[in-house]
Amino acid sequence: MKKKFLLTPGPTPVPEEVLLTQAAPIIHHRTKEASEIIMSATEDLKKVFKTKNDVLTLTSSGTGGMEGAIANTLKEGDKVIAIACGKFGERWVEISRAYRLNVVVIDREWGDYPDPEDIKKELDKNPDAKAVLSTLCETSTATLGCIKEIGELLKDRDTLHIVDAISGLGGDNIEVDNWHVDICVAGSQKGLMLPPGLAFVTMSEKAWRFTEQSNLPKYYFDFKAYKKSLGKSTTPYTPAITLIIGLRKALDLILKEGIDNVLHRNAVMAEATRKAVKALGLELLSKKPANTVTAIKAPQGVDGAEWKNLLAKKYGMNVAGGQAQLKGKIIRIAHLGYIDPFDILAVISAIEMSLKELGYPVKIGEGIKSAEEVLSTL
Amino acid sequence: MKKKFLLTPGPTPVPEEVLLTQAAPIIHHRTKEASEIIMSATEDLKKVFKTKNDVLTLTSSGTGGMEGAIANTLKEGDKVIAIACGKFGERWVEISRAYRLNVVVIDREWGDYPDPEDIKKELDKNPDAKAVLSTLCETSTATLGCIKEIGELLKDRDTLHIVDAISGLGGDNIEVDNWHVDICVAGSQKGLMLPPGLAFVTMSEKAWRFTEQSNLPKYYFDFKAYKKSLGKSTTPYTPAITLIIGLRKALDLILKEGIDNVLHRNAVMAEATRKAVKALGLELLSKKPANTVTAIKAPQGVDGAEWKNLLAKKYGMNVAGGQAQLKGKIIRIAHLGYIDPFDILAVISAIEMSLKELGYPVKIGEGIKSAEEVLSTL
Repeated sequence: MKKKFLLTPGPTPVPEEVLLTQAAPIIHHRTKEASEIIMSATEDLKKVFKTKNDVLTLTSSGTGGMEGAIANTLKEGDKVIAIACGKFGERWVEISRAYRLNVVVIDREWGDYPDPEDIKKELDKNPDAKAVLSTLCETSTATLGCIKEIGELLKDRDTLHIVDAISGLGGDNIEVDNWHVDICVAGSQKGLMLPPGLAFVTMSEKAWRFTEQSNLPKYYFDFKAYKKSLGKSTTPYTPAITLIIGLRKALDLILKEGIDNVLHRNAVMAEATRKAVKALGLELLSKKPANTVTAIKAPQGVDGAEWKNLLAKKYGMNVAGGQAQLKGKIIRIAHLGYIDPFDILAVISAIEMSLKELGYPVKIGEGIKSAEEVLSTL
Repeated sequence: MKKKFLLTPGPTPVPEEVLLTQAAPIIHHRTKEASEIIMSATEDLKKVFKTKNDVLTLTSSGTGGMEGAIANTLKEGDKVIAIACGKFGERWVEISRAYRLNVVVIDREWGDYPDPEDIKKELDKNPDAKAVLSTLCETSTATLGCIKEIGELLKDRDTLHIVDAISGLGGDNIEVDNWHVDICVAGSQKGLMLPPGLAFVTMSEKAWRFTEQSNLPKYYFDFKAYKKSLGKSTTPYTPAITLIIGLRKALDLILKEGIDNVLHRNAVMAEATRKAVKALGLELLSKKPANTVTAIKAPQGVDGAEWKNLLAKKYGMNVAGGQAQLKGKIIRIAHLGYIDPFDILAVISAIEMSLKELGYPVKIGEGIKSAEEVLSTL
């Protein structure tokens, strides 16, 4: 018998109470029962996003929400500033180019993120930029973006603040209203503890104003249709209703704990992991580590892919590896959703044992000791 | 105690065996286990579509697949012939206009569908049409499109044959290869007996050739990215993996019965319903009724919405009402997916009892007698 741990930054484990909702007989999405669930989940999502803005629920992966953010607010040839620095930041660049926008790219070494001053400089050079496209947690490098500071830079400009919080929402703090975020995109399979299949998008008044001048083609992701349907307590197209029913249950769990308590728990688990990593003489990839996920460099002489496979096969610890240019160079451990301190202790223990097996000189117990010291503050 | 029957043309009931897969612990979508499920489901979907073409799985409602069919193959200003005749045929017109295509609309009274000769005339008038956009089963009117005949018209022309089989697949017969269908779009929550959240798209060689000249913007629905990822046994963006696992199970059930046996069962249930309707002195809406769903006109003096509500509240029979211009005028009963002959008998019995209660002079027992005569041939 070996338990399986899922410690990837999406999908994250789905709580048993939520899983059971998925096995209930299906209901039709155009019923009073479904409408009540859709509307109450929409209201409660606002508490997680910390916003009074509209929240739209799309049946797609988070990428669909990113595309919709672009297609609904911009015009062909519009200038946007996209912050790259990782696989998901680069997705902003790709989507913008697919829609023939004029993209100014701010790039950094993977694991880094530009400082607010650098972004301000780009904005001053490009006062005609219609949007800044940023990432709350760049999952591929486990790096935190300076979303609050970007909000300060943009709040008085005619430039939209569009944030990919797909992995970040419920992992790292984001305050959509206080931080002047115009469009915030999230996904179901991360901090919201659901299977993948839903994307969520917040839309500020300013963002809705931009939709009036947008001329990019769209249909399935036409946000105005979603807003109109929300006014009738429904969605324009058939939604993944079973996932929305799961969302209702997951939000119960999150709001019972309290979103700030959830974020604090994540922060402590992330800090415990970082301390443990250092105690073992390992290195973090990120210069600005997020609390959603931690990226650990494979030490000299250890192949990251082999390490990841050993963790999964021998210890049942399913962690993420590196993507694109980081393939085989890092492992990534999630700290969000239905993951608790003892899951973190377990994965650090498996890291110690697996590294020993791979010939890396690890002091068994040093990592879990450091982690426990931090976790005991919870 | 009152059992609930779901007899809507999507979502259809989900078999218990499939529901249970939805409550299993989630797996990561970038694993060997997930890849094997994705690839074997893709292969088995080909048997349902009766094709050797590529089958792409999108995480979206069927509408996303329709949009993708347009956005991947056409250019701005291209001429297309869209067959309207119902809410979903009109969706083809709306999507085409959203992408600024030059749309020639063939319309008919709701409940009718153009004959092949009429479509041929339009094609001869518009030899530059790049695509004909049709519907296998127009769910809003329960009407069958002449897909096979359109295929004959198009097979030697430089015009794509694009079919919305969202409600129709697994309900009415479609033979993608034999009928020269270039793009066939389907959804998960109909004949495939799953919750909503997945769309499926077949792409012929001819359709792939058209993608080379398409210049419409797309990203999430960029079919080339899906094809490239299928080559690596995966999907380009995070898929609704729990639904794909459910699909694997649902396909087991469908292929065990055999797709032609499934279609025969649906056909017999549809015929039983039509016979019962006539025996009760009621009228069908459709002049060309599909086997996927039957639309029954509310008789003189009976309000369709009230009738539908009575069926749901008193008898637990959840049927569909009319949409758009048919609101309050019809009820619709599905015959596809996890619906068996005794479900049909039950709903016809409830129709008899509810009509009696609403003051319509019904001969109790005449409908179920006629239905049983047909069902006994199964």
